[in-house]
Amino acid sequence: MNDPSADLFLRPGAGRRLGAGHLWVYSNEVDTQRSPLGRFSAGDPVLVRHADGRALGSAYMEPQNLICARLYAPDRTQALDVPWLLPLLKQALLSREALLPGSCYRLIYGDSDGIPGLVVDRFGDYLVLQFHTAGIERYEAVIVTALVELLQPRGILLRADSRSRREQGLDDRIAVVHGEVPAEVPLRENGVAFLAPVFEGQKTGWFFDHRMARARLGDYAAGKRVLDVYSYIGGWGVQAAAFGAREVCCVDSSARALEGVAANARANGLQDRVSVLQAPAAEALKELHRQGKSFDLVILDPPAFIQRRKDAKKGLKAYQRINELALNVLEPGGVLVSASCSMHLARADLLLLLQGAARRSGCELRVLEQGGQGPDHPVHPMIPETEYLKSVFARKLNPVAI
Amino acid sequence: MNDPSADLFLRPGAGRRLGAGHLWVYSNEVDTQRSPLGRFSAGDPVLVRHADGRALGSAYMEPQNLICARLYAPDRTQALDVPWLLPLLKQALLSREALLPGSCYRLIYGDSDGIPGLVVDRFGDYLVLQFHTAGIERYEAVIVTALVELLQPRGILLRADSRSRREQGLDDRIAVVHGEVPAEVPLRENGVAFLAPVFEGQKTGWFFDHRMARARLGDYAAGKRVLDVYSYIGGWGVQAAAFGAREVCCVDSSARALEGVAANARANGLQDRVSVLQAPAAEALKELHRQGKSFDLVILDPPAFIQRRKDAKKGLKAYQRINELALNVLEPGGVLVSASCSMHLARADLLLLLQGAARRSGCELRVLEQGGQGPDHPVHPMIPETEYLKSVFARKLNPVAI
Repeated sequence: MNDPSADLFLRPGAGRRLGAGHLWVYSNEVDTQRSPLGRFSAGDPVLVRHADGRALGSAYMEPQNLICARLYAPDRTQALDVPWLLPLLKQALLSREALLPGSCYRLIYGDSDGIPGLVVDRFGDYLVLQFHTAGIERYEAVIVTALVELLQPRGILLRADSRSRREQGLDDRIAVVHGEVPAEVPLRENGVAFLAPVFEGQKTGWFFDHRMARARLGDYAAGKRVLDVYSYIGGWGVQAAAFGAREVCCVDSSARALEGVAANARANGLQDRVSVLQAPAAEALKELHRQGKSFDLVILDPPAFIQRRKDAKKGLKAYQRINELALNVLEPGGVLVSASCSMHLARADLLLLLQGAARRSGCELRVLEQGGQGPDHPVHPMIPETEYLKSVFARKLNPVAI
Repeated sequence: MNDPSADLFLRPGAGRRLGAGHLWVYSNEVDTQRSPLGRFSAGDPVLVRHADGRALGSAYMEPQNLICARLYAPDRTQALDVPWLLPLLKQALLSREALLPGSCYRLIYGDSDGIPGLVVDRFGDYLVLQFHTAGIERYEAVIVTALVELLQPRGILLRADSRSRREQGLDDRIAVVHGEVPAEVPLRENGVAFLAPVFEGQKTGWFFDHRMARARLGDYAAGKRVLDVYSYIGGWGVQAAAFGAREVCCVDSSARALEGVAANARANGLQDRVSVLQAPAAEALKELHRQGKSFDLVILDPPAFIQRRKDAKKGLKAYQRINELALNVLEPGGVLVSASCSMHLARADLLLLLQGAARRSGCELRVLEQGGQGPDHPVHPMIPETEYLKSVFARKLNPVAI
C-alpha cells in the first residue's frame, strides 16, 4: 500500500517552513518520541503533522537521511500512485512544450516539479530516469506506468548510478525498464544535432541545463577561435562551431567523450572546424599557454568542484585556479564563459573568484551577461537548493597603456 | 589643472580592497590627519596612497560623500583629461559594437567602464549624459570633447537631474551641450522601433537595461493576452505585441507615458493590439481583478521601491504586495515577469518575496528563467553594487485537484 496511513509528527514550531511552501522535513524537526524514525523504511508514505495534530501533507520517508521526509502532496492525504503522478507529469510536459520545441529537455526536475527525488530527461521518444533518493526508487513501477501512459515512449532507461545514491549505500543499476533504448539517442539543442550516449555517458548522457547559455553563443562565437574546456561530447564547442566559430578545440580527459565530439561535429558537417585535445583541463591549459596559443572565446564548464558545503573553500580555490589558467590563454578583448554547477558556490562568490583569477592572470574582467537554469530546470522559489547552475560571460579587458 | 598633484593617504591596512581591484575609497579609510577631507573640493584629482606611501592610483574627490574618492586610473598617476578618457570610451564602444548591432545602448556605465559617476546612453547619432557624482560633473568639457572626437554625434543632451544629484544638493540641469537634440529620438530594441522622450522622460528617456529580458518575450508572448504594469512608454508591452501577443494592455499613472505607448505602438503598426489604462499600478490591478479580468502574461517592472538600504524592509513588502496583486489577475498556467531595479534587493530575496506573494494569492510559482544586465551594463566583479537589475519569469501553476 502506498497510502500514507502512518503519521510523522513534527516538534512544536517546526512546521513553519513547510507551511510557507518548502517540501523538506529535517530529522531534527521530527518529534521522535511520537514518531521514531527507526520505525520507517525509505519510501514509506506518511502524513506529516504539526505538533498539535494538524495535517501538513503527504510525504515519503528517507529515514536514513538528514532530510528524512519529502512532501509530495502538500495540504492533503494522497497516495503516491499513478493518479497522483499523472497530473504532475502533464503539468511539467505542458510547461516544457510551451517553451521548448523539439521534445528534448528535462521533463521532470525533482522538487520543482512536485516529484521529490525524480529526474526524467526526454530525448524525443526515449526517456532516461534518475532516482536521487532511496525513497522514490520504491515507486519505479508507478513512475514507469505513468510515463508510458502519458508519452508512449519507445524506451525508458533507468540510470540509477548517481554519486548521491552511492553515498547512501545504494548499488548502481542501469537498466532498460520499458521498450528498447539504443546505445546513443539523437537530440537537437538550439537547432544543432547531437547523439547522447545514454548508457555510458555522464549523468543521463546529456546536460540539458546549459541550453539557454549555449544559445547565447550565437552572439559570441561567430568568426572566433574557441576553446571548450571540459567539453564532454561537445555541447558547447559543437554549437559554437555551428554558430559560426572559425575553429573550435575541445579539451577533455576522456577519449570516449572526444569520440563523441568528433561524431557530433560530423553529424553537423563541422568536422573541419572542430578539433579535440585529450588531456586533463589544467594540463591542457598550461601546455597551450606554454606553446603561446590563445583564443578569442574560452568556455570553461567544469564538473562540480564543490560537492558538499564543507568542500567550499577548497573547491573555490580550484575554480579560481582553473579560471586563472583559462584567462592565460584568452586574448585581450576576448570572452571567458565560466560555468559552475556547484549548488554550494553562490553566484556572488563566483564573481569574486573570477576577480581573483583575473588579478592573478594580470588582467581585468567585466561581466557581459550571466546565464542560469531555463524552463526545464525550474527553480522552486522556496527551495534555494533547486538553483545550482551559473554561467558568467566576461570580457578580458585590453590593458590600458600606462 | 586636472593632474593629481595632491595626495590622499589611507589608514594602515585600508588599501586592501582597492588593491584587489575595487575603485571606491570610503571616508573612514582616509588618514584625515595627513589628508584632511576639508582641504578638497568635489572633483579634485588626487593620488591615493597606502599608509606607507606606495601609490594606489589616481582618483577624483567626493569629499562630501561617504565614498569620498573614486579611482579612475588604478596603478598610475594620470590626469583626468581627454587622452585618459578616449581609450576608455573606445574600449566601451568596441565591446558594445561587438555584441549590440544598431548603435542604441548604454555606451558608458560608470565604474564598470572605468569612468566613475558617468553614464552615457547612445541613441544612434544622439547621446544623453548623466552625472551621478558631483566630482565627474567638473569634467563635463573633457567628456563632451572626447565623445565628439570619438563619435561625432549630432547632439549631446545632459540630463543632470538624478535623485542622487538632488540628494547631494546639486541643482537640476537639462541642457544640450553639443549640436542639436530633438524632443524625441528614435531607437530600435530587439528589432522594434521606439521614440524616446530624452528631455522629459524618465532618466535618459529610455531603459536599455532590460533589453535581453525583453528579447525573451519572443518565447512567451505569442498569441497571449498581456498586461504591462508600470509600462512607461511601452518598452515591454509594445515589444510583446511586436512578438505576436494577441492583445496588450499597458498600465501607467502618467498620461504622457501612455501617449508614448500609443505613439510607439503606431510606429510599429500595432495600435490595434495595444491599449492603455491610466491609473496607479495597485489600483489598476485591483480594479481589473474586481472586473474579473485576467491575462496570460503579466509584466511588472516597478520603479526602485528600495532606494536606500534602510528602506529594504518596507520596500520588500511593497514588492510583495504588488506581485500579489499581479498574480491575482494572472491565469493559472500563465507567466509573471517580475522585475526589480533595486540594488538593495538581492535576487534571493526577490524569489522569497515572490513565494510569499504566491502564497497570499493562493497559488504556486515556479521560476522558468531569470534575466539581468547585458553587455551594455557590464558588472564589475569586484563591485557588487554595479549589479542591480533582476527579472524573474515564473509560471503560476495550475492548482492540483484535491
